[in-house]
Amino acid sequence: MTRIKAGIVGGTGYTGVELLRLLAPHPAVELTVITSRGERGIRVSELFPNLRGRVDLAFVEPDDAGLKACDVVFFATPNGTAMNSVPTLLEAGVKVIDLAADFRLRGIEDWERWYGMPHACPELLAEAVYGLPEINREAIRPARLVANPGCYPTAVQLGFLPLLEAGVIDRQSLIADVKSGVSGAGRKAEISLLLGEAGDNFKAYSVPAHRHLPEIRQGLTAVAGEPVTLVFVPHLTPMIRGIHATLYATLTEPDADLQALFEQRYADEPFVDVLPPKSHPETRSVRGANQCRLAVHRPQDGRTVVVLSVIDNLVKGAAGQAIQNMNLMFGLPETTGLDGIALLP
Amino acid sequence: MTRIKAGIVGGTGYTGVELLRLLAPHPAVELTVITSRGERGIRVSELFPNLRGRVDLAFVEPDDAGLKACDVVFFATPNGTAMNSVPTLLEAGVKVIDLAADFRLRGIEDWERWYGMPHACPELLAEAVYGLPEINREAIRPARLVANPGCYPTAVQLGFLPLLEAGVIDRQSLIADVKSGVSGAGRKAEISLLLGEAGDNFKAYSVPAHRHLPEIRQGLTAVAGEPVTLVFVPHLTPMIRGIHATLYATLTEPDADLQALFEQRYADEPFVDVLPPKSHPETRSVRGANQCRLAVHRPQDGRTVVVLSVIDNLVKGAAGQAIQNMNLMFGLPETTGLDGIALLP
Amino acid sequence: MTRIKAGIVGGTGYTGVELLRLLAPHPAVELTVITSRGERGIRVSELFPNLRGRVDLAFVEPDDAGLKACDVVFFATPNGTAMNSVPTLLEAGVKVIDLAADFRLRGIEDWERWYGMPHACPELLAEAVYGLPEINREAIRPARLVANPGCYPTAVQLGFLPLLEAGVIDRQSLIADVKSGVSGAGRKAEISLLLGEAGDNFKAYSVPAHRHLPEIRQGLTAVAGEPVTLVFVPHLTPMIRGIHATLYATLTEPDADLQALFEQRYADEPFVDVLPPKSHPETRSVRGANQCRLAVHRPQDGRTVVVLSVIDNLVKGAAGQAIQNMNLMFGLPETTGLDGIALLP
Amino acid sequence: MTRIKAGIVGGTGYTGVELLRLLAPHPAVELTVITSRGERGIRVSELFPNLRGRVDLAFVEPDDAGLKACDVVFFATPNGTAMNSVPTLLEAGVKVIDLAADFRLRGIEDWERWYGMPHACPELLAEAVYGLPEINREAIRPARLVANPGCYPTAVQLGFLPLLEAGVIDRQSLIADVKSGVSGAGRKAEISLLLGEAGDNFKAYSVPAHRHLPEIRQGLTAVAGEPVTLVFVPHLTPMIRGIHATLYATLTEPDADLQALFEQRYADEPFVDVLPPKSHPETRSVRGANQCRLAVHRPQDGRTVVVLSVIDNLVKGAAGQAIQNMNLMFGLPETTGLDGIALLP
Repeated sequence: MTRIKAGIVGGTGYTGVELLRLLAPHPAVELTVITSRGERGIRVSELFPNLRGRVDLAFVEPDDAGLKACDVVFFATPNGTAMNSVPTLLEAGVKVIDLAADFRLRGIEDWERWYGMPHACPELLAEAVYGLPEINREAIRPARLVANPGCYPTAVQLGFLPLLEAGVIDRQSLIADVKSGVSGAGRKAEISLLLGEAGDNFKAYSVPAHRHLPEIRQGLTAVAGEPVTLVFVPHLTPMIRGIHATLYATLTEPDADLQALFEQRYADEPFVDVLPPKSHPETRSVRGANQCRLAVHRPQDGRTVVVLSVIDNLVKGAAGQAIQNMNLMFGLPETTGLDGIALLP
Repeated sequence: MTRIKAGIVGGTGYTGVELLRLLAPHPAVELTVITSRGERGIRVSELFPNLRGRVDLAFVEPDDAGLKACDVVFFATPNGTAMNSVPTLLEAGVKVIDLAADFRLRGIEDWERWYGMPHACPELLAEAVYGLPEINREAIRPARLVANPGCYPTAVQLGFLPLLEAGVIDRQSLIADVKSGVSGAGRKAEISLLLGEAGDNFKAYSVPAHRHLPEIRQGLTAVAGEPVTLVFVPHLTPMIRGIHATLYATLTEPDADLQALFEQRYADEPFVDVLPPKSHPETRSVRGANQCRLAVHRPQDGRTVVVLSVIDNLVKGAAGQAIQNMNLMFGLPETTGLDGIALLP
Repeated sequence: MTRIKAGIVGGTGYTGVELLRLLAPHPAVELTVITSRGERGIRVSELFPNLRGRVDLAFVEPDDAGLKACDVVFFATPNGTAMNSVPTLLEAGVKVIDLAADFRLRGIEDWERWYGMPHACPELLAEAVYGLPEINREAIRPARLVANPGCYPTAVQLGFLPLLEAGVIDRQSLIADVKSGVSGAGRKAEISLLLGEAGDNFKAYSVPAHRHLPEIRQGLTAVAGEPVTLVFVPHLTPMIRGIHATLYATLTEPDADLQALFEQRYADEPFVDVLPPKSHPETRSVRGANQCRLAVHRPQDGRTVVVLSVIDNLVKGAAGQAIQNMNLMFGLPETTGLDGIALLP
Repeated sequence: MTRIKAGIVGGTGYTGVELLRLLAPHPAVELTVITSRGERGIRVSELFPNLRGRVDLAFVEPDDAGLKACDVVFFATPNGTAMNSVPTLLEAGVKVIDLAADFRLRGIEDWERWYGMPHACPELLAEAVYGLPEINREAIRPARLVANPGCYPTAVQLGFLPLLEAGVIDRQSLIADVKSGVSGAGRKAEISLLLGEAGDNFKAYSVPAHRHLPEIRQGLTAVAGEPVTLVFVPHLTPMIRGIHATLYATLTEPDADLQALFEQRYADEPFVDVLPPKSHPETRSVRGANQCRLAVHRPQDGRTVVVLSVIDNLVKGAAGQAIQNMNLMFGLPETTGLDGIALLP
């Protein structure tokens, strides 16, 4: 079998090293190029010693990268980077999966307001497919350009999805109280992410507004068929990997069998696992794995449904989902290279 | 000045060591006795070496304890313990502050159902004063028996209080999404609290039912003047101390000036600090201190108000609040011995 | 190919779940039985949700286990358990790998003194092969009974090995200052291992005597060809997985090329990685991987050599090394099923 | 009593906030000025919310600071900063305590080589008193300029001191294996200090050379009366505060009563606590407290003595010790304002 030639742009962040960890043993992929302006010439395994003996590449300049010779290029870059290179790559016949936000919002005004810059190729926003396979699988298969979802949006959308599709909740009552480990903020030299600051500490942040809000709202609105109202409160929790979304909504169909609803919706999904009634998924149960685990509750048999949704923000929330999308785009079994078991403890 | 002779029953848990840390330097208190069945004869400072040179007591058997010679006795015992000794102590003229749950609920049926045992002195439930000074200050002063609030109930009630008193929210719409460090579960040899289990991990627990639910509901109902509906979801977060409550409610008075409401309500409270608009209190900002810090938000100017409330579960959520109550009960300035600054980082 | 039928005795600890994580996807193994007295009837994936969908076994009583029908049985039990069953299993033709200490010491007096109980089958101590493949590979291949090394002994012996074999250090000058994450102590309900106790804290323990001391001393003495003197100081560090050994010895051959010595000794070892000069291996670089990474230093060109050695205590220090031994005992390529890349971050 | 007017230069780091936490309630001190170039105009309590309601100062420019009107100025600045201002302040009659390294080494060549810059006032190196009260108490009292020791040097010197003074160890055999929490590296935006990097991870660093080596060597040489040979290996451990030094040396007087030696040496020291035989001090037992706790061991009655020494790097290793020095310099009882009990858990 000819292997898929894969390139990574911006490989020095957590999303980059996670792509490397998952792609290096992927049986259908040949890693051919990885770029970084800052670390040009440095061997990947020098920066990330877990890859010693497993990845022999060195970082190259983006311009030298021979990205056009790849079959697929992953962008693990800051927001606003991929959009500058994507048109050229698509023209050269390269498929693109952007792990940043450049192609996640369909509305250009929306995007430019939330991301604070002009978009370099707004004409591609309509073509880009939002890469949440549990919703968009068939559209992803033939796509040239996939916008890989954000980590919070993945956890939140998978949790609300069965309820909105079934129409059993008030669409104006959605609350997402979400907690993230620090790797979700990236490998950035910021005071607030120091172990001395974020360790043994808990806080909410960006309560007035967070960029994942419009992305989630857009996705849920599409599912619901009409606009939803969502309150989204992200928190920073003192751990490395993992997102735990606690979701609340008001039931409009008090007789709905919520457990059955979730189990049926995800019965055929290889990467979504509905736990038995009264369960509480732990983030470590998906650490390093391309899994979302869900539980649904209705406390005191009241009118509020509570969904608990956990993912590893770097896997199902980023690199793993990107490879899931790649598998779909290249006609591979969707689970290829994604069968690692979560590391517990 | 004659010092208050203070005794502690059950001094080997986190609440006990925290009482010792705060009472040892308290200028109006003389620690006279501390009991423990399991550690009888062991010096306190052997078990808790932070107290070396500061607390010279050894643990004694509860029966030998001379508790009746104390002016005040703190119970830092498991639920269902204090109720067996309290009547005798009260009779002997000793004031009692129970840091467990024995006297927190006013309804005997309620208590027996949630705590799963018969109550030993139900006749005292009506006399016991719920020790949340920000609500019950005047009733606490003359009390013989104070039921010190739970940690979750303290954080949640202080957060909802101004909104319910002002009548600006729908009383049926309350959601408390609360995150606790592991010390909230006590110093107990349980697998789920190991660093190997709770470290680098996040989970909800007891979503179907948690014993703090009826306590919070009772308190909020009293404030609101009519029953409230509350969804309460506790979570375990990988840190040692600290509770972060994220509270949601539906506004019924969209024009209410929420910031002013909170600032005015707590203007004279020495231990409640309302942060400026758009703030996000951190749990470490109250680590070791008898403080609650609050922020109030209204995301996207919508109909949902979000309150962020942080305390140290062992201080304002337990031992510190108990001493605040003792100060009130003995006519001392309320802040005596409680002016420690939070340890940050 | 007929798969190796593998059983696990005592599968509810950290070593057990790690064996399951590594054996479930092992291409040459069929997991057939897992025992636990305490959790009989419980599905493995209920206790360890990371295994949902990957391991379908339930725990059975040791007596019901059909262990004799296995090709190999792993004992992941407390010390003193395996020795009661091993003779019967060996007689039945089953190969045994004991991850506890029952067969690690060759001297029966030594064993009984350090482990405080009589040995049930002292006649097997001589037959048992100490399962450190980097020293004993050829003896492991035909063995019926392998004593899998302890976690500290693995990290320490691999670090001192090249120096002792080459005879370049004073054998009476060995110091091993070793730091372990809490999973090294097992999944036991002990106060000292709580996140509330071990978190944000660092301490030495068992400085007067630790059971791994005679095991390390025996191994190093065998390598050196004469008795060694070792000071061994273990520490508990607030992390989940990982051991970092910092090793000191006095050089007797000041002209030795230490870097070359290490690189040559381990050139053909698939699971020992010698880092470039001036490196500092991190425990996370081997998290979840069957790897030992080493660096050798000679500070200020003095007479003291410093070796830094890291492993994951649950993998190269336990379950991974056990599978490495199994691969050797069954004629498989040594690396089969052990090529997982460390999880970083 | 007239209060001591105290200023802090460089108040935005961990040493700065710790000075504020300890000086704000100090009964003999009035905090009058705190400087920061980067945070000019910002209220101290905005950056460090634990100080809300306790410290009313805002950061000012160093030039506007009115530092000359202070009685004492603390420099909590990066290395190479204090030396530019100290001569002027001394001339103005202000006493200076430098928490950085500018005046720690007595040899100018040594200093300039290790710190990589020319010294701005080498003439003051001889006058500066090394501020380790347990050694230099009498010299500190009349000093104008005190060089506050580094955190590692404090823990290491207090541990070796009794052994070197008594002459019972080989001075060429010293090994200091030291582990630090991340706050020891300061509040700096560096990748290696992120929770995502330093969390759940352990590593040595700077094994070839660390700037605290010459400082420790100088101090120990002064105590021993002749040069010592020291191997110093620092490690980063995933916690916030705390240093644990594990010290090794070869005994030359095998009959020495080590426990008595330590107890007698520190009998009158208010901030050094010698634990009973066979103890293992924990870093959390000094968290937030100006304490050093020590234990001395002689494993297997061999020729190697092992000393365990713990401090809070920000208190006895920095701000607390600086205030201890200030108390001495101003004729106050040495323990004034330093009686806080360690926060455990």
